[in-house]
Amino acid sequence: MIDKLPTVKKLMRHLHQVPFLATKNLYRVTSYFLQLDQERLQQFCAALQEAKSKIILCNVCFVWQEKDTDCVFCADSSRDDSVICVVESWHELLVIERTQAYRGMYHVLGGVISPLDGISASDLKIDELVTRAALGVNEIIFALNQTPEGEATSAFIARKLQQLPLKITCLAKGVPIGSNLEFVDRLTVSKALTDRRSF
Amino acid sequence: MIDKLPTVKKLMRHLHQVPFLATKNLYRVTSYFLQLDQERLQQFCAALQEAKSKIILCNVCFVWQEKDTDCVFCADSSRDDSVICVVESWHELLVIERTQAYRGMYHVLGGVISPLDGISASDLKIDELVTRAALGVNEIIFALNQTPEGEATSAFIARKLQQLPLKITCLAKGVPIGSNLEFVDRLTVSKALTDRRSF
Repeated sequence: MIDKLPTVKKLMRHLHQVPFLATKNLYRVTSYFLQLDQERLQQFCAALQEAKSKIILCNVCFVWQEKDTDCVFCADSSRDDSVICVVESWHELLVIERTQAYRGMYHVLGGVISPLDGISASDLKIDELVTRAALGVNEIIFALNQTPEGEATSAFIARKLQQLPLKITCLAKGVPIGSNLEFVDRLTVSKALTDRRSF
Repeated sequence: MIDKLPTVKKLMRHLHQVPFLATKNLYRVTSYFLQLDQERLQQFCAALQEAKSKIILCNVCFVWQEKDTDCVFCADSSRDDSVICVVESWHELLVIERTQAYRGMYHVLGGVISPLDGISASDLKIDELVTRAALGVNEIIFALNQTPEGEATSAFIARKLQQLPLKITCLAKGVPIGSNLEFVDRLTVSKALTDRRSF
């Protein structure tokens, strides 16, 4: 039936590209946009285009910033610029910011090395990180996701940084707070055991 | 941090309205749109606005149709116009079409009666269905979702149709094909027992 509605099909082809819209949900999202009134739809498109034109990446830490203002982190003199936390993307940065436990700088890689997805080291902001680190940073904290790709990327970058006089750390691995040991996977428990610390 | 990026915040407020985008996914979807190149973003907005201007509801069965063509169902003379299948929305219609087991007409209600969500009978295409039914239809099939609201809406419409000389049916209730009885809920099994049929 969709084949007989080319305009709807075209819209759905575009929506299909958006992450987190599974095929089943696509119909509902399409309905949502078809039912939106003209004015709201205009506003939606305007917001998309405004964001596209006004939001750029900071050329130091690669976090999104408004074109006409300074980077939220780089321009904040209250933050400790001798520590850089390396994250995969903006979302992980937000997670760390939400803890309010970190007051250093960030470096957004823009992904992790993943040959299967065609992402190599040169697609990421790794050289920029090495350049930044060489300017006199005390510590680099790896906060990439705990995936094989994330671990491999950390190892790759650590090798590039090993000549520099700085501390390289990564997030502690162990049992999550509030967790029931019974439901924690074997690897995590064994890691928590070997990394045990005095109480 | 989002508070310091008003343009991003505005875009996220718009995206937040879209169904099936949970707050966690919102960041990734926002990134997706920020990373989209200018041309693709233009095309996306154009597709949205084209759909908005070109797609209308058929004024008989209330299925989406292209403005300059006939309704896919109403104009199809090979379909049996003496049977009307009543569905909640477009998605359920597509599910039924996909079975290729139905060659009658449809009537899209546009929702179900749900006082908690502020949806009353007058918000739906119920009067239009009664008018259609009065024009000489043999059978009305209720294919609303198996929710309390769906059942109540079916009952409400059935009462409105009871004066008319037509058959009112609903989808069979029973154990799903391929299911393991152990995992089917009690109510469904008991319904399947009382509605049992000769083998």
